[in-house]
Amino acid sequence: MSPEINTAAAALRFGSREDKSEIEAGGEFAPKFDRDGLITAVATDALTGEVLMVAYMSEASLRLTLALGEAVYFSRSRQELWHKGATSGHVQKVLEILTDCDQDALVLRVQQRGGGACHTGYRSCFYRRILPASTNPVSLQTVIEERSYDPDAVYGKEK
Amino acid sequence: MSPEINTAAAALRFGSREDKSEIEAGGEFAPKFDRDGLITAVATDALTGEVLMVAYMSEASLRLTLALGEAVYFSRSRQELWHKGATSGHVQKVLEILTDCDQDALVLRVQQRGGGACHTGYRSCFYRRILPASTNPVSLQTVIEERSYDPDAVYGKEK
Repeated sequence: MSPEINTAAAALRFGSREDKSEIEAGGEFAPKFDRDGLITAVATDALTGEVLMVAYMSEASLRLTLALGEAVYFSRSRQELWHKGATSGHVQKVLEILTDCDQDALVLRVQQRGGGACHTGYRSCFYRRILPASTNPVSLQTVIEERSYDPDAVYGKEK
Repeated sequence: MSPEINTAAAALRFGSREDKSEIEAGGEFAPKFDRDGLITAVATDALTGEVLMVAYMSEASLRLTLALGEAVYFSRSRQELWHKGATSGHVQKVLEILTDCDQDALVLRVQQRGGGACHTGYRSCFYRRILPASTNPVSLQTVIEERSYDPDAVYGKEK
């Protein structure tokens, strides 16, 4: 990340979380981070509204997302900042961020660059649905038949 | 919950999480719960695709959701099962559940009964957006102007 973006990210000020009615009805962005310091972020396609992925942001990654205009998450498995698309080129340009009533979740409306949001090659990570509960064991069915890109070509055979 | 629903919920079998490629590409539902025993669930309007709310499910609440066909979450603040709409009548009929590549998040496609998903009276909890980062402190703007119902009439003045 460039020094300018880091400086802009650090300068952003968030609201106080002292007053519940202000959090719910007010005009200050006062995000709530859980005990791991993370907030849930749902990335949706800005055009279709389709949910592309669910990820998490630390305060640092949220600040960078706001300053950069591209989605920067926090990888729980790698425990590090994750500028989505930095290696694959599949960045998410953030057009709008919505927050919920208690400000502990975010919805990002993004333009997904490259083939798709999912490392498996699908445009969305949600490419399977649960079959009706009458099937036991509970089974899945693929609902997005076509991959948008070849993940081996982007990430290599070793993922 | 009726004994029949509890029995059906308990009888559901989930897949193993031993094989990563099976989790990503397979046909078994093998949900991953975090260290608090929860999985993130995003409720969307089945008709419009709009994100209505983000909540969490324990294994028990996920089983009940599948058996009942209505959203049953786990309330992190109250630390108890939360059959959404049980008091307000604003139940969410679940038409479809999608899971993501690593099966640690769910998208529910629901029919929201009653006025809306949010306790504040809006159809969605995501009724505010963040204004562009040039505004500092970071500010919010309401994007859903009309409440769908009067929360005081449903929940009483004391929420």
